[in-house]
Amino acid sequence: MSRPKPLSGFPEFLPAGRIVENRVLEIVTSTFELHGFAPIETRAVEPLSQLARKGDIAKEVYVVRRLHADAADADELGLHFDLTVPFARYVLENAGHLAFPFRRYQVQKVWRGERPQEGRYREFTQADIDIVGQDALAGHHDVEIPLVALDVFEKLHRDLGLPPVQLHVNNRKLAEGFYRGLGIEDTAGVLQRVDKFDKVGPDAVTQLLTAEMGLSEAQARACVSLAGISATDESFVDDVRALGVEDPLLDAGLEELSALVRVARRSVPDRVVADLKIARGLDYYTGTVYESFLVGSEKLGSVASGGRYDSLASDGRLTFPGVGYSFGITRILAPLISKGRITASRSVPSAVLVAVDAEESRDQAIAVAGALRSRDIPVEVAPKADKFGKQIRYAERRGIPFVWFGAGYDDSVKDIRTGAQTAADPAIWSPPDGDLRASVSMDGNER
Amino acid sequence: MSRPKPLSGFPEFLPAGRIVENRVLEIVTSTFELHGFAPIETRAVEPLSQLARKGDIAKEVYVVRRLHADAADADELGLHFDLTVPFARYVLENAGHLAFPFRRYQVQKVWRGERPQEGRYREFTQADIDIVGQDALAGHHDVEIPLVALDVFEKLHRDLGLPPVQLHVNNRKLAEGFYRGLGIEDTAGVLQRVDKFDKVGPDAVTQLLTAEMGLSEAQARACVSLAGISATDESFVDDVRALGVEDPLLDAGLEELSALVRVARRSVPDRVVADLKIARGLDYYTGTVYESFLVGSEKLGSVASGGRYDSLASDGRLTFPGVGYSFGITRILAPLISKGRITASRSVPSAVLVAVDAEESRDQAIAVAGALRSRDIPVEVAPKADKFGKQIRYAERRGIPFVWFGAGYDDSVKDIRTGAQTAADPAIWSPPDGDLRASVSMDGNER
Repeated sequence: MSRPKPLSGFPEFLPAGRIVENRVLEIVTSTFELHGFAPIETRAVEPLSQLARKGDIAKEVYVVRRLHADAADADELGLHFDLTVPFARYVLENAGHLAFPFRRYQVQKVWRGERPQEGRYREFTQADIDIVGQDALAGHHDVEIPLVALDVFEKLHRDLGLPPVQLHVNNRKLAEGFYRGLGIEDTAGVLQRVDKFDKVGPDAVTQLLTAEMGLSEAQARACVSLAGISATDESFVDDVRALGVEDPLLDAGLEELSALVRVARRSVPDRVVADLKIARGLDYYTGTVYESFLVGSEKLGSVASGGRYDSLASDGRLTFPGVGYSFGITRILAPLISKGRITASRSVPSAVLVAVDAEESRDQAIAVAGALRSRDIPVEVAPKADKFGKQIRYAERRGIPFVWFGAGYDDSVKDIRTGAQTAADPAIWSPPDGDLRASVSMDGNER
Repeated sequence: MSRPKPLSGFPEFLPAGRIVENRVLEIVTSTFELHGFAPIETRAVEPLSQLARKGDIAKEVYVVRRLHADAADADELGLHFDLTVPFARYVLENAGHLAFPFRRYQVQKVWRGERPQEGRYREFTQADIDIVGQDALAGHHDVEIPLVALDVFEKLHRDLGLPPVQLHVNNRKLAEGFYRGLGIEDTAGVLQRVDKFDKVGPDAVTQLLTAEMGLSEAQARACVSLAGISATDESFVDDVRALGVEDPLLDAGLEELSALVRVARRSVPDRVVADLKIARGLDYYTGTVYESFLVGSEKLGSVASGGRYDSLASDGRLTFPGVGYSFGITRILAPLISKGRITASRSVPSAVLVAVDAEESRDQAIAVAGALRSRDIPVEVAPKADKFGKQIRYAERRGIPFVWFGAGYDDSVKDIRTGAQTAADPAIWSPPDGDLRASVSMDGNER
């Protein structure tokens, strides 16, 4: 095989990058568990008929087929493009064995045949949480879900130095009620065009609304004014009221959104913004919607998003409403890792390299390594009884901070960063807590 | 959507099963890290041309294609069927950025279009370790790798109660040298037939060797006698010598295999068996080979296997020899989980449910939950201000051991298994260590 080339859109990391990604996933999943979300994993494939239902996403689906398929393989399968479609299927399939409201998290790869570009991948990792009820789901979960997201993002910021995240929240009822109050019937059509606000600007949206949707200039301007409202506190309610539109659904939306902003603001000030232009495109949300932007990297687009759907799944008899959030792990990390902005202090888990004097005494080095491992210290034994200078370089090249000498007869351990060497007992010695695992640095600041 | 049916060969677990699987993966990966293996993850797809190279496995490959593929998608892709082919490609692609010998672990799904049956899946999780050198790799790594496997299996046995595992080891040099010493030229052909020993028995193998390979009765009997030798100590060397065959390659194989058995025996007695019929079919091993069997479930076949390959990968200029072990996580767990032999004490991570008196005081319950979470205690807040009996049943149904009452005004916590209720401060109280996480039981014995 000649040297293979990377496949565009399928990011892979060197070991130090994967160590960073694992640390992030550890924070993400342990936070989900602290909030009582149970883990599940679904198969990578779903029947193509289910994947193709979501309108225009069909063109992005990867079809999967046995190289030598036979008649028994009648079902056409595709790789899942998100974790919501498989979760909805899982809920229906296992409803009799699940306790509702059911809180689950799921961290898996998903695949989309999109044109690869920065922030868009063909294979990427998502981490999803959802709370799903049977027939009904209380509104307070719409407030709970973004608080979990904030908890995750604040820990990633505090513990790993990732940029902070701002959550932009809105409510479909608010926009839909507002449009209805203006006498507009095709509210979905308007929402779809308002969704282009960030891309094309307010004037172009006004233009689209009058030209394509047949709105009057006044109606279009009101819709664009609504989309332009944002605030980190409940003051947005007065701004909306000032536009002079009345509708019961608008009232419901305003009430839900202000409850969310009020509680979130109490938890972490200024991280949550009521942003009335957030529409979440064609997704099936019916109430609260969420998007999240890395401060300083807003051009990456939303790195985590979600919302409320009145019907995540239905088998005709039962309906399962839900609210959820999906974290784009690869979208957040791949640019930071590939540009070297976030790195690990070593490319291996090992905190210690046990040096080998001679191949005949390898067993003694293995015994020291075993003693350290029994106390949960990651260790490797030098692969070759080279000169000690060469063994130290082996450790240096990998970022291993300690080298153990004289295994079994004159045990000592050297911190190769400072050169300090001290006698040590393999049954007792431990590295400082900060050296037990690789540390992560963001923009040169070690954590 | 009507109630969907499971796809045969694509196992999925309920949350309690996934909790068990996560606990197993935690032990597996943390043990790999204690031995200094670095994590990597590779994309799910490889060029079909690379996947199809491995002879008869081609028929099991899943081809992946965009639903609306265009000319730019010239490369045909397939899902990887193991983690060795992608790892070999990763090593070649990144050789300039890796430090050799390179020790990596990788835990991912793999896909094979095999006919589904017990122990055979179309989608399953493997956990692989490999040590790869550039141009050369010392023989002591052949001894190291099965010691890591033993460490993993002993912990799964001790900590989770999984059945113990017996490692069966052999060395291709031993068999090949023996066959050569008998004057046989097509040693691969003989090995392939000896590989059927367990399936068809010694007489049928003798028959195959004379009929298909043209061996004399004496040659065939000697090969079958060799395959019949097994021992948990170095006594197998004398048994082989007693067959009276001489060859330098045989000597090398005997030496390598006895070093392995000697060291492994010292680490964990009687778990490693020199088993001279182990051939590992058509795989590209060139020296030591390993298989592993769950004691009491030998009919599942080998649940973890591996060996030494003189050339894991080569770009024409450089060659990368390696030695590795692949753990069939799904093959080990899916039968135990689906039969309910191994279970988790709860279906959620939550150790505590905070009861809600009335919707107006939900904020106080959320504050108590936050205080507990800040000390790493997994908590959920009751979804509804039901009667307390109903809130306790909510906890019971999920296996949550503690319910918190009187949040913020008369805090107390009740162990709903014993009924014992005590006053508690959310800033101080912790559950007993054994209740912080779900416990795992195997055949009814809780760990």
